[in-house]
Amino acid sequence: MEYEELMQLLDEILALLQSKNFREIKVKLNELKPQDTALLLEELPEKDMPLVFRLLSKENAAETFVEMSYDSQEMLLNIFSDAELKAVFDEMFVDDTVDIIEEMPANVVKRIIKQSDAETRKQINEILKYPKDSAGTIMTVEYVSLRKHWTVKECFDRIRKIAVDKETIYSCYVTDDKRKLIGKVTVKDLLLHDYDTPISEFMETDVICAETTDDKEFVAQQMSKYDLSALPVVDGENRIVGIVTYDDILDVIEQEATEDITKMAAVTPSTDTYMEQSVWQIWKNRIPWLLILMISATFTGLIINTFETRLNSLSPLLFACIPMLMDTGGNAGSQASVTVIRGLALDEIRPRDVLKVLWKEIRVSVLLAACLSVACFAKLYLLDGLAFGFDYKWYICLVVSIALFVTVVIAKIVGCLMPILAKVCKLDPAVVASPFITTIVDALSLMIFCLISTSVLPPFLS
Amino acid sequence: MEYEELMQLLDEILALLQSKNFREIKVKLNELKPQDTALLLEELPEKDMPLVFRLLSKENAAETFVEMSYDSQEMLLNIFSDAELKAVFDEMFVDDTVDIIEEMPANVVKRIIKQSDAETRKQINEILKYPKDSAGTIMTVEYVSLRKHWTVKECFDRIRKIAVDKETIYSCYVTDDKRKLIGKVTVKDLLLHDYDTPISEFMETDVICAETTDDKEFVAQQMSKYDLSALPVVDGENRIVGIVTYDDILDVIEQEATEDITKMAAVTPSTDTYMEQSVWQIWKNRIPWLLILMISATFTGLIINTFETRLNSLSPLLFACIPMLMDTGGNAGSQASVTVIRGLALDEIRPRDVLKVLWKEIRVSVLLAACLSVACFAKLYLLDGLAFGFDYKWYICLVVSIALFVTVVIAKIVGCLMPILAKVCKLDPAVVASPFITTIVDALSLMIFCLISTSVLPPFLS
Repeated sequence: MEYEELMQLLDEILALLQSKNFREIKVKLNELKPQDTALLLEELPEKDMPLVFRLLSKENAAETFVEMSYDSQEMLLNIFSDAELKAVFDEMFVDDTVDIIEEMPANVVKRIIKQSDAETRKQINEILKYPKDSAGTIMTVEYVSLRKHWTVKECFDRIRKIAVDKETIYSCYVTDDKRKLIGKVTVKDLLLHDYDTPISEFMETDVICAETTDDKEFVAQQMSKYDLSALPVVDGENRIVGIVTYDDILDVIEQEATEDITKMAAVTPSTDTYMEQSVWQIWKNRIPWLLILMISATFTGLIINTFETRLNSLSPLLFACIPMLMDTGGNAGSQASVTVIRGLALDEIRPRDVLKVLWKEIRVSVLLAACLSVACFAKLYLLDGLAFGFDYKWYICLVVSIALFVTVVIAKIVGCLMPILAKVCKLDPAVVASPFITTIVDALSLMIFCLISTSVLPPFLS
Repeated sequence: MEYEELMQLLDEILALLQSKNFREIKVKLNELKPQDTALLLEELPEKDMPLVFRLLSKENAAETFVEMSYDSQEMLLNIFSDAELKAVFDEMFVDDTVDIIEEMPANVVKRIIKQSDAETRKQINEILKYPKDSAGTIMTVEYVSLRKHWTVKECFDRIRKIAVDKETIYSCYVTDDKRKLIGKVTVKDLLLHDYDTPISEFMETDVICAETTDDKEFVAQQMSKYDLSALPVVDGENRIVGIVTYDDILDVIEQEATEDITKMAAVTPSTDTYMEQSVWQIWKNRIPWLLILMISATFTGLIINTFETRLNSLSPLLFACIPMLMDTGGNAGSQASVTVIRGLALDEIRPRDVLKVLWKEIRVSVLLAACLSVACFAKLYLLDGLAFGFDYKWYICLVVSIALFVTVVIAKIVGCLMPILAKVCKLDPAVVASPFITTIVDALSLMIFCLISTSVLPPFLS
């Protein structure tokens, strides 16, 4: 449903609320997909939202609740009676319950746990024990397990019996007496074989799986690489404990990309969306980086202060070229670093490719630097010099162009090596990205410029 | 399979090649998943690769071929006999064939088309007609369609009969006599109902679908939002022409994120990976942006040249603060812009939220600016002044701090507004990101600094 349609529906519902025509609201709501219902509820005035939520059918209520923001969930949970809370959580898959529990304050968590039955409570506690961002935290414990001596017919009977409560039934896992994972069959396999064939005859035995403690990014990579719609998660003794489904992976892939993008822009990533974050949260995620980067600019200040008098005596026009030099160096560096960081994240570049990458960047950078130097010379001499009337002598233009050449080459080398180095040192390549590389390249390019100017120019001026 | 294991296997296969033990290579290869076989083949010396490829079983050959890089595919196609080519493409899904055709030179395409049967050729031509990056180009034409008067048993019979050739069978689409899409049933639904129930009794009639010309990013958003494993694609008259499956969407989501990241770093995106691109291609994707950005730095040069003499007469130390000011402004701006760009891409921020975003950024920026100004004052006065011995008078520190405050606030405002403005003007928000915003913020911050210095400082110095 388009956003505009949804806003129109919102107006209709607000009107129906005014005229207290709840029956009609109920009809309209139950035609919607839960994702759209959630969006709609979030747009309602805070006082009307719980009222409208209560008009949802029992099953819709749970599905909609899962799709809402944590803030709205908390608000609803605080006004729910125990019975209402139980009704919503009973309809939910355990992995969704855990996601919500992780974001709620202690008193709300207590109430949720109290209303769960013993089995669910045990499952919740198991999942909560897994390390942050691990496969264990995103898996669902509702999956279909089969036995290898069963026939296709027996498997179908089993699936028919338990399908209602399972998130996905299309990939079924074959386990032995000790719950160890020994094979996989898909419903497609089952459909393609006769009813009395034992599944051991055609089950896949080389099953790709993850351990509970594996990083969720690794799980996403495996599923994306092998085009899997579900991946079993096993414990240290190869016993299956849950499965990760493709819809969780879509979220992981989007989150990981967002995290990398955020880090590259020198912001601490957050699991909340921008609109959900408070001003203080945003401030907290941004200020440390800005402070660090500002303080690290001390180097450039020191270099300028050191060379200032000498540069000034050579030509005051030299100062005007500093921002251009530093910006071009920074841009050239982040082109290389961001490309390499993304390549590392997608596993297209590996640390052992470092020499190939370096050799490629050196060749690219020489080509780029040559073009830019010529353009820079022309710009200074023709545009700034002849058109704007500043006195750019040819030897000053030459010195700036040489400095630019060296800066671009060094920026590319620093830009491609730093992320790989970070990866080797088990640091996050995205964190060392643009801003840090910019700071390093700034200092280097300034240094190069000052050294080249002060050593090349004096003979021309004397 | 881990990369290290794969490299070990590679060594084994190279040894087996030496001893011409092809039978053993065959055994080893047919144990692998096609994705790993493809990786392995790419690592082999060019002369051995076709030989090893020919050892693959017929079905494995096609699946492996699909997973290889376009360069390797082209190389193989050039040495394949017509029969070999036909064998590989006959086993392939049409959407994969089209992907390959789009990347191959004309003579290779001609051979592929020539070896296809009439039906496939028609399907290929249909898909090739859809606009670039549209739903039509990523869909598969192999799907299961059912009729609404059929019973569950009839549906299962149908699925059993055709499942082998279909990419996914779990979402089946119900069509009328004119192939119009009227409903959807999943295999799970079928399993949960009795054999003699007509599917019209339980089929979902409100089916989320895309049109062939919709952007693939829109398809990805829909599937991710509604947690769908497949989405039907219809033509202008609501006739189903194909489906998009979740594995295609995983690729789309990763590609879109890579494209956005690449554009933010001022590089023209490419569909090839970094390792696949030649030095010239990389150069071509980077040089225009570096040139544009370098030329646009003319403004900063002009500003410095204009104010130089006056700044120098006030205090030569002022120049040393320019890089810090410009960098901090640039960093502050790209923090805001990148966050907003990602929010827009994930549909978490909409253009109509512009005032909310602006108000949030203004509050955040004032908080950030206050912190940074105080830190900047302290750094200049204590570190650069007292520790390093430069003569930073308190009023110079104050002027720099004030300029920093204004710069940070303006940088944040420009940073959050530009992407939204781009979106409204139907431009790509990612393209206006960091580097362009940095250039604008650079010029503005420099202007602010020069104006504040020259208007505030003179009374103190006279």
